[in-house]
Amino acid sequence: MAAQFKRRIEKLASLMQNSGISGAIVSPGTNLFYLTGLSPSATLERLFALLISSDGVTLIAPKLYENELKGCWIENIVIWSDSENPYTILSDLIRKSFGRSGKIAIDDNMQAAHILRAYESLRAYDLAPLGPLISRLRIVKDEEEIKLMSEAAKIADKVIERIISEKLVGKKEKELARFIENEIVDLGADKFSFDAIVASGPNGANPHHTPTERKISEGDLLIVDFGAKYKGYCSDITRTFSIGKPSERALEVYNIVKEAQEEAFQTVREGVIAKEVDAVARKIIASKGYGERFIHRTGHGLGLDIHEEPYIAQNSDVELRNGMTFTIEPGIYLEGEFGVRIEDDVAVINGRGERLTKMSRELVVL
Amino acid sequence: MAAQFKRRIEKLASLMQNSGISGAIVSPGTNLFYLTGLSPSATLERLFALLISSDGVTLIAPKLYENELKGCWIENIVIWSDSENPYTILSDLIRKSFGRSGKIAIDDNMQAAHILRAYESLRAYDLAPLGPLISRLRIVKDEEEIKLMSEAAKIADKVIERIISEKLVGKKEKELARFIENEIVDLGADKFSFDAIVASGPNGANPHHTPTERKISEGDLLIVDFGAKYKGYCSDITRTFSIGKPSERALEVYNIVKEAQEEAFQTVREGVIAKEVDAVARKIIASKGYGERFIHRTGHGLGLDIHEEPYIAQNSDVELRNGMTFTIEPGIYLEGEFGVRIEDDVAVINGRGERLTKMSRELVVL
Repeated sequence: MAAQFKRRIEKLASLMQNSGISGAIVSPGTNLFYLTGLSPSATLERLFALLISSDGVTLIAPKLYENELKGCWIENIVIWSDSENPYTILSDLIRKSFGRSGKIAIDDNMQAAHILRAYESLRAYDLAPLGPLISRLRIVKDEEEIKLMSEAAKIADKVIERIISEKLVGKKEKELARFIENEIVDLGADKFSFDAIVASGPNGANPHHTPTERKISEGDLLIVDFGAKYKGYCSDITRTFSIGKPSERALEVYNIVKEAQEEAFQTVREGVIAKEVDAVARKIIASKGYGERFIHRTGHGLGLDIHEEPYIAQNSDVELRNGMTFTIEPGIYLEGEFGVRIEDDVAVINGRGERLTKMSRELVVL
Repeated sequence: MAAQFKRRIEKLASLMQNSGISGAIVSPGTNLFYLTGLSPSATLERLFALLISSDGVTLIAPKLYENELKGCWIENIVIWSDSENPYTILSDLIRKSFGRSGKIAIDDNMQAAHILRAYESLRAYDLAPLGPLISRLRIVKDEEEIKLMSEAAKIADKVIERIISEKLVGKKEKELARFIENEIVDLGADKFSFDAIVASGPNGANPHHTPTERKISEGDLLIVDFGAKYKGYCSDITRTFSIGKPSERALEVYNIVKEAQEEAFQTVREGVIAKEVDAVARKIIASKGYGERFIHRTGHGLGLDIHEEPYIAQNSDVELRNGMTFTIEPGIYLEGEFGVRIEDDVAVINGRGERLTKMSRELVVL
């Protein structure tokens, strides 16, 4: 394990060097997990950070984590106690490891609180986001990572099955959301990868709807959107069901979204540009007159984070390569009426797109 | 409602002026909710921010939220679409509203990503954390806020009752944690305020224990620590139960913690300094020879955030005032054996401490 992390850090250090960046500060979250395997729980307001320079790595951590860090592969660990000012320690380390000026990269995920409290010393540097740099590593998953993502996707598929076998009419959106989250954990996930979205009837017209007390009713279209986190890696699936016989209009809209999703998926190939995939979905929906009602991008990269590179969006110039993983999730949203969205997780494998989520995309009438 | 938010923003603007701060940038989270009532879900990587200056407020939000923001009380709303660069828009707004130099405050909770992407323009300013300023408002709750916190505390009390009526022996810590979280939501909370801690037997010796597969067993002390979020406001309760007859040592330690908790609570008065409350609990535990085993602070402020001002800690010089709300939660942790912690939520009302969580603190043998 340690060897893998050292390799990733070496690669990052070499990218940093090529970009004229003399140091990086990484905070708890997916970047730290990717580079070290550490995922300290609930650090909240206490400074916990990894410093990377050409000299190597130093971890700075609160005393509360001293026990947890015993046996950690990192050699340089600086522990601070509640009676010390961690930002003084951080500033000293930065000056020592990164030099007194130049360009340094900071974890996109770091809380502003830490930057602002170390700003006296940080402002001597050009500050850049670490994201664009580290995403050049993270954007391509290795075999082991794809395997974990497939496991996460399998859990999502199974939860869809379980939803279908439930009696849904009369259930509140909130109840179904909780059912989904519990099933995800029951099926062996670390956790759900985000709060489940359950949007019934007119609520489906809001792509980021928060589940309410509304009861699922005969005649609704019902959107469920959720995912599992498995050993750190996320899945993300959306299906739209019909509660009872769908109206003609619902059926028409459903079939447009299904076609857009399928055609966008078929476009996925090594060498294709991400925005070309977006364009295919967008063109189909627009040609049927619903262009204005497809109000978001076609998809987002997926991995340790639920949203990461490559984005499948109108302005995304990323060239798709083997090992990239992302969602394809076009939707149509009709205010006051309903919404339809169909989402799968897709990986580029052997030059072609492969769906990791495999549940049927035919309209299920419940 | 709008009037209340305007009042809060006016107060903040006047504190800013007194501190020579010409602008503030507030991001989604509890500060934004406190100042505007908005809690946009899942903004993730898309820039969503409130700018406050002496001229008034401007909200910048992604197009995805355009519908949600219809009817919002804020007049100046700038919507950006996925084809625009929101940081160019932000930079222009900052220069227009805040002037070209000087000091600006940034939400402690903001993601570094946003600061770094706007850094070209932000670095012209002295940057300071918004936390110390806005916590001067948030630290004192008004009647309505205390009411909501009482509701959140009532839910926590009821969940304690439900735990007591469960068959616990043989249940895994993880199962009980999920039971607790589900009960919290069933009882009408928005959500649980943090992942429930269930620590049985020797696991109780770690105050931040994550629930495991360990089964609760005869002879264990069992710590449960959880809270509800009700209309944004948090509760946080801890009780320690005995599974079967407690050992003499367990009973002795329990009674010391109970006494420390009660005496610390009795110390709460308007005008008392927070660290004096901490000192009372610490002194009692130390006098019985367990001083080294009380390894955290006595409490933390509670409100929209689960940890906020005022901290009840050895170095906390905050003077307690009416409307302040915080936990009192001394504990004793014996590695390899067990832990005991008792936690209530307390508000200063009419000059005196009042418990918001009201469940008995007598040792319950289950």
